[in-house]
Amino acid sequence: MLKLYYAPGTCALASHIALEEAGADYTTERLYFKANQQNSPEYLEINPKARVPSLVTKRGVLTETPAMLAYIAQTFPKAKLAPFDDVFAFAEVQSFNSYLCSTVHVAHAHKLRGARWASEESSFADMKRMIPKTVGGCFALIEQKMFRGPWVMGESYTICDPYLFTIAQWLEGDGVDIKATPKVADHFKRMAERPAVRKVLDAEKV
Amino acid sequence: MLKLYYAPGTCALASHIALEEAGADYTTERLYFKANQQNSPEYLEINPKARVPSLVTKRGVLTETPAMLAYIAQTFPKAKLAPFDDVFAFAEVQSFNSYLCSTVHVAHAHKLRGARWASEESSFADMKRMIPKTVGGCFALIEQKMFRGPWVMGESYTICDPYLFTIAQWLEGDGVDIKATPKVADHFKRMAERPAVRKVLDAEKV
Ligand SMILES: N[C@@H](CCC(=O)N[C@@H](CS)C(=O)NCC(=O)O)C(=O)O
Ligand SMILES: N[C@@H](CCC(=O)N[C@@H](CS)C(=O)NCC(=O)O)C(=O)O
Repeated sequence: MLKLYYAPGTCALASHIALEEAGADYTTERLYFKANQQNSPEYLEINPKARVPSLVTKRGVLTETPAMLAYIAQTFPKAKLAPFDDVFAFAEVQSFNSYLCSTVHVAHAHKLRGARWASEESSFADMKRMIPKTVGGCFALIEQKMFRGPWVMGESYTICDPYLFTIAQWLEGDGVDIKATPKVADHFKRMAERPAVRKVLDAEKV
Repeated sequence: MLKLYYAPGTCALASHIALEEAGADYTTERLYFKANQQNSPEYLEINPKARVPSLVTKRGVLTETPAMLAYIAQTFPKAKLAPFDDVFAFAEVQSFNSYLCSTVHVAHAHKLRGARWASEESSFADMKRMIPKTVGGCFALIEQKMFRGPWVMGESYTICDPYLFTIAQWLEGDGVDIKATPKVADHFKRMAERPAVRKVLDAEKV
């Protein structure tokens, strides 16, 4: 059985939704960031990066959202969450998810996690002021150049969809109006209505 | 035939080495960052993110190093650059590459690309001061918790190896002493001796 370590409102939501969509047999364990549990000795044994998500499998622990999403899709092929039979189409899925991970998520992280890259209060304030522009710029690019519709990759729902939904959840707090990107806004609405997504959002609320 | 857009000294080196190791039939085109060619209208048609690398395939353009590396490995299976027959082992490869892309590369980018996330000179200076600590911290984690040896994933050379080598090339300029991480230092030396790596480094020098 798989076990997902998560904290509500984080990027772990993408893997949580994917597990649910895949029909996987899994359990979850919540970390409390307010109690700094991601830095507890017990958790560092599981994930020395001190971040969520982590996925415990019978072969070992996996971290990094794009890798976990592809692993979930590949372990539950019946759910058809990625085009594994088409090398190029799979690479496009990976490319989209890598952009979310390395650029869009990172842009957002400069709002509250500035201490990863700087040390002065003035730098943190400077970074915070840039968030609407940097995150908004990423979403404009997604809207104009990447999103195919009705799902990220076109006709098929893939592991790109819960990941985009997860990061789009942060837009309001980031001061970016989702209405500026109508395709993303419509996707967000349709994602929120999916039974798997509702179930997972409810579970993370507890 | 594949075509790689690159600039010397950048993360594009990882894909360049992988193409060479794979025995791929490919051409390259160099971009001149000094002339801001990554932002030229012609290049933005190819990659609207205005970054390198980009890989032009007969099906379309791929971007994002981890996605391109997996694509190259999968397109040239005889070179055995990734364990595609083992879902978990492949996920470990992806996890390592995703960490390099989203955390290690990003830490390094705060040295010269601070304007992506902030706007004041004082913030840029603050970010620059942190580089040895942030990049050094990532490499300490790689050394202690991730690197298996003799190659990143153990006995087999994979697409993780050229990517680690590429980012390790930046250590000296980042003020991180590679000798603090002896396994990475030894890996770096052995990588630099590989015929494919020497050939690519020579080609990028021209
Ligand atoms: N590249 C990683 C990033 C993971 C990450 O940054 N997780 C955040 C939550 S969204 C975290 O655990 N932050 C806790 C902290 O920084 O202490 C991934 O995509 O999984
Ligand atoms: N996540 C991308 C990052 C690509 C990237 O940042 N490339 C840098 C060179 S290492 C670049 O093109 N920089 C040019 C610029 O910022 O103008 C990847 O891993 O391929």
